[in-house]
Amino acid sequence: MKREILALSGGVGGAKLALGLADELRPGELTIVANTGDDFEHLGLNVSPDLDTVMYTLAGIGNAEQGWGLAGESWSAMDALGRYGAETWFRLGDRDIATHLVRSQLLRAGESLSQVTRRLCGALGVAHTLLPMSDDPVRTMVQTDAGELPFQDYFVRRRCEPRVGGFRFDGIDSARPHPQLLERLRSPALGATVICPSNPFVSVAPMLRLPGVEAALRASAAPVIAVSPIIAGAAAKGPAAKMLQELNLPQTAEAVADYYGDLIDGFVIDDADVALAPAIRERGIKVLVVPTLMRNRQDKVGLARRVLAFARALREEEATCTP
Amino acid sequence: MKREILALSGGVGGAKLALGLADELRPGELTIVANTGDDFEHLGLNVSPDLDTVMYTLAGIGNAEQGWGLAGESWSAMDALGRYGAETWFRLGDRDIATHLVRSQLLRAGESLSQVTRRLCGALGVAHTLLPMSDDPVRTMVQTDAGELPFQDYFVRRRCEPRVGGFRFDGIDSARPHPQLLERLRSPALGATVICPSNPFVSVAPMLRLPGVEAALRASAAPVIAVSPIIAGAAAKGPAAKMLQELNLPQTAEAVADYYGDLIDGFVIDDADVALAPAIRERGIKVLVVPTLMRNRQDKVGLARRVLAFARALREEEATCTP
Repeated sequence: MKREILALSGGVGGAKLALGLADELRPGELTIVANTGDDFEHLGLNVSPDLDTVMYTLAGIGNAEQGWGLAGESWSAMDALGRYGAETWFRLGDRDIATHLVRSQLLRAGESLSQVTRRLCGALGVAHTLLPMSDDPVRTMVQTDAGELPFQDYFVRRRCEPRVGGFRFDGIDSARPHPQLLERLRSPALGATVICPSNPFVSVAPMLRLPGVEAALRASAAPVIAVSPIIAGAAAKGPAAKMLQELNLPQTAEAVADYYGDLIDGFVIDDADVALAPAIRERGIKVLVVPTLMRNRQDKVGLARRVLAFARALREEEATCTP
Repeated sequence: MKREILALSGGVGGAKLALGLADELRPGELTIVANTGDDFEHLGLNVSPDLDTVMYTLAGIGNAEQGWGLAGESWSAMDALGRYGAETWFRLGDRDIATHLVRSQLLRAGESLSQVTRRLCGALGVAHTLLPMSDDPVRTMVQTDAGELPFQDYFVRRRCEPRVGGFRFDGIDSARPHPQLLERLRSPALGATVICPSNPFVSVAPMLRLPGVEAALRASAAPVIAVSPIIAGAAAKGPAAKMLQELNLPQTAEAVADYYGDLIDGFVIDDADVALAPAIRERGIKVLVVPTLMRNRQDKVGLARRVLAFARALREEEATCTP
């Protein structure tokens, strides 16, 4: 049976593993769902940072060094915006602005975010399926000691400096998960759901909290595997470790496994965290210990292969154990 | 008495004389009103070509060679838009896009086009007053052998190729002229109204046809002086001469004087057209024959000085002749 992989991804780290998976799997074998809780309207443009990071990465036009944005980007519009006294804390490159112009115009013309994403991906030659988690707006709000902040306000404008106390996903209760997300989870062809090494609180949680998604994940016959974004107590990128600390949780991969709890069947941690494996296994979670830091294409493909092999092993084990 | 000059301008040619006038007059002595009949929504952005051409020109950041757009402009967003299959027939430079982003966002937030224009001009250091002819939308429609076309569709997309039969200014009947336009026309301090060498049919006509403007021009004590955009049967730039021909009018400065008719007191023609002066004078219009082609800053200032001197002469003559 041909197996399909469903990957749930945030931005930078998630996009890296998504690229690895895309290198290993044919278009029909991989569906990537991206968080849209970070989406926002900026300068009148509809910006979808995680979707675009994954899209640019898969299209091979992303800025691999910084992990987001476009390679060889120019910043003329931003300079001019600065001269007008417009907001420049969120840096939009000239080519990136074209993406947002097209998206904003199509959304205003009544297209859904999925339709727009399909068009953009098609134009950029992205062959694998990339879906927004929902066509309905969900907006991640970060509760901090500086008040409740819209995500990008916290993340970019304030450089994650405020102390985090919790999160709220505005609109989540009435947002419908993308139909294909639920279809894939219910499909007998599903080989695994892979939760990419993205921030669990702000990148993965919005996807999991969409009505029906957790239940569908639990009901899915395929294993759910999460890759830890925390390596040796630190995040490769972003505020995940800082958030763990501020939420009074240990800054460890183990705490991430705890966060996902019994929703996941398998957890992938870095070699550096091998000592945590027994404690995580005690929770009934299978653990794969491999190199997880993705510095180059080879690392990404290597991790993707290991995750896919882990998924096969979990499926076979399941098949063996089930009477 | 300190005299104020009111200049009515379209894009390229008008902006050149506006710059000359701005060099000669202090900020409080010059108000420039720009045509907004060419404005349109493009790629979800509110674009005001004539306003921007005048603004960039006065700010000293315009592309003097092509007469519109910005000097040293880059085109990355346009390239990317092309890759998305978006419309690229109207070329928006990266820095220019910043202007449209700011304008669009402020308009959507409820500011008037005048307020937005004041902000943009302020940021760019434009000291003289630049006003849109109206805060209400007026859209020039060109009636052609290819049907009725929105102005930019005719002008840019179809490069003025269709044969013109007439014009319609959508929204003109309910559009209110900018209050300061009428105030200036009624002011006893007005020294002259200068109709810049812009296309009479599509750049000047929308301003004249705004309810109350023609009547205010006729009632104004100050002379109304038009500068011919036609020199030796050709337009320095744009389709004015082609339009004259297609409308079965002579391709001459004289035909432009006829078009303005008794609305104007004085008409400025180029040395090359000196032979037309007697016929125009027969219509009761005073004629100034001077070099009108503006290739450089000196030409612009030179023409501005001559137009201002012509205005003074017409005022003095009027003062002498009036019993």
